[in-house]
Amino acid sequence: MKDFEYQCQTKLIFGKNTEEKVGEETAKHSKRILLHYGKNSIKESGLYDKVIKSLKKNNIYFVELSGVVPNPRVELVREGIELCRKEKLDFILAVGGGSVIDSAKAIAAGINYSGDVWDFFIGKAVCEKAIPIGTVLTIPAAGSETSKGTVITNGGKKLSFSTNILRPVFSILNPELTYTLPNYQTACGVTDMFAHVVERYFTNTPHVDLTDKLCEATFRSIMLNAPLVIKNPKDYDLRAEIMWNGTIAHNGILGVGREEDWASHRMEHELSAAYDIAHGAGLAIMIPAWMKFVSKKNPSKFVQFARNVLDIKTSSEEEAINEAINKVENFFKEIGMPTRLSDIKVNETEITKLAKACAANQNQIGGYVTLKEKEILEIYRLAL
Amino acid sequence: MKDFEYQCQTKLIFGKNTEEKVGEETAKHSKRILLHYGKNSIKESGLYDKVIKSLKKNNIYFVELSGVVPNPRVELVREGIELCRKEKLDFILAVGGGSVIDSAKAIAAGINYSGDVWDFFIGKAVCEKAIPIGTVLTIPAAGSETSKGTVITNGGKKLSFSTNILRPVFSILNPELTYTLPNYQTACGVTDMFAHVVERYFTNTPHVDLTDKLCEATFRSIMLNAPLVIKNPKDYDLRAEIMWNGTIAHNGILGVGREEDWASHRMEHELSAAYDIAHGAGLAIMIPAWMKFVSKKNPSKFVQFARNVLDIKTSSEEEAINEAINKVENFFKEIGMPTRLSDIKVNETEITKLAKACAANQNQIGGYVTLKEKEILEIYRLAL
Repeated sequence: MKDFEYQCQTKLIFGKNTEEKVGEETAKHSKRILLHYGKNSIKESGLYDKVIKSLKKNNIYFVELSGVVPNPRVELVREGIELCRKEKLDFILAVGGGSVIDSAKAIAAGINYSGDVWDFFIGKAVCEKAIPIGTVLTIPAAGSETSKGTVITNGGKKLSFSTNILRPVFSILNPELTYTLPNYQTACGVTDMFAHVVERYFTNTPHVDLTDKLCEATFRSIMLNAPLVIKNPKDYDLRAEIMWNGTIAHNGILGVGREEDWASHRMEHELSAAYDIAHGAGLAIMIPAWMKFVSKKNPSKFVQFARNVLDIKTSSEEEAINEAINKVENFFKEIGMPTRLSDIKVNETEITKLAKACAANQNQIGGYVTLKEKEILEIYRLAL
Repeated sequence: MKDFEYQCQTKLIFGKNTEEKVGEETAKHSKRILLHYGKNSIKESGLYDKVIKSLKKNNIYFVELSGVVPNPRVELVREGIELCRKEKLDFILAVGGGSVIDSAKAIAAGINYSGDVWDFFIGKAVCEKAIPIGTVLTIPAAGSETSKGTVITNGGKKLSFSTNILRPVFSILNPELTYTLPNYQTACGVTDMFAHVVERYFTNTPHVDLTDKLCEATFRSIMLNAPLVIKNPKDYDLRAEIMWNGTIAHNGILGVGREEDWASHRMEHELSAAYDIAHGAGLAIMIPAWMKFVSKKNPSKFVQFARNVLDIKTSSEEEAINEAINKVENFFKEIGMPTRLSDIKVNETEITKLAKACAANQNQIGGYVTLKEKEILEIYRLAL
């Protein structure tokens, strides 16, 4: 096990009608806030009205900034920073999914920085101060409700940075708010949380027994509950399982004491930056391809995955691995995800550009198996 | 799943030589502290000198209060409260195991309260303010390094209370500090962490799939690593697994969204209050007896436990349960724990008193199966 520091200070308020507590929780931190959200969905669902009512009841002055899109843009982040400065707002309430929360985190980070917020993403500056944010989560997926990271898109670049001070001070998680998510979006979220476990589980760090077992538990719970929730989208307990899996998958506890990988995420970010597809859909394409490639170079953890997560008994390790990867691909198909680049109309001529761009951002990616441009291209090819 | 709130704000600093950071971490919170510890073991091991050096290097004024014993006493807590008030100390650094940390928490809670600190334990007052505490953990067991609870003994009474503000602001966990723990003490700690999962896992709350699986992962990791660490007490990675299991077992994450039980702990508290035995040893006696009794009344979760934790395939559910309970009892024996009251010289004439005392503190205990004096007595009898 590697040495580590871990602190996840986010207060979680989980359950029915918990969004009604948002004003009370926010008031513990601020009376002048930015209310940040996406487009119309929170208005159509009635969530917007409930949030406003709770804020007003607690005498909180709020300024609205809506318009966050999937793969949230740096332009809106800059607008949010200016707005907070002008209005002297010192707290951001993000109501939405991972994109809204990531956008809120980036705004929170940029307010006390004199340069351009993008500097944090390109490593030109280190974020040392951020105003606090709170969240009301509507899409279980990105885990941004407790994570320390934010992912923002700037033109064709989709980059991330993370620091513990970006973790929300509170997050409100009501599974009922996810009843109306279309199945496709639910499945994208499920794929994202599955990927967050993949990126941590596949490691070369030895002696991480408990954390391995916690990862395996989370994989199993996601794979059990996701197909059920697609069939029963208004089942409270299934929605609750998925929501809680999304948080556990990415609050960092599954990654302590070990090297993480993140190659699938990096390769996916090129996809969603170039084609503006949903992050989860891109991951459902990249993960099986990544697994096919790296399991050949470094099979050991895949054998463990086959045995402990998927109960594959086949004595041949190679067969067990192939069966495991097929099961993962079939799981994504079962919940309605694309699993090939051809499903999203990306063809062979384009993957060279993707591989080049992916290798350009960082010279090499991955940890379980490190990948340079040549290997990245091979993985994109396996995904065709 | 039940609604819940969860926040564990403790910063964990885990790994080799991490005790050298204690001064730096403490200085973020205070420059006038109480240094609280047990008897001579931290001096013999050299830990005391390292802590002092780090505190001095960071210009921290400290007053020492040593003498914490297993089953920590309220008298020393009161002394600590007076000392902190007199010396205007506003932070407590606990260096030791669960007893030292629990004692520190009780002192921290009592300082800003005008009445007697025992009021919090008997429910006469609610603790709303506490000064912060930090810890350097030397015994993985009680989980007090991140938990919100404290257990204190007052005469023949051993009671607890908990509130989120008692969670340490930081905890330093260096597995190397546990190399010199005698096997018996290691095993007591292991039993305590195993018990912390038992108290959460055995619940009637339906639809807690992920949390069940996380509990099962923790059970499996404890049962795998504990016998190994007894044989290899200076293996860093095994010590690290045990230490991390102790934290995960009791930071609260395994108990979210579900009713907890705590009957075994309550019954054990009577034992250790009356006979001053180690808490872990008492639990190794009470848990198998509790399992034998409640599994007859409410078998369902025991079948799941047998299948998922112990891989018992027997088709008969009754046989599977019996085999599972035998395996748990044998696990405790294997690591060197007593598993019967006769092992600690408690005989039949004494259990009536124990049952009466246990039922007197709270009229009924438990959640998976609720127990009154009559049932409690039956369980003590099964433990003879």
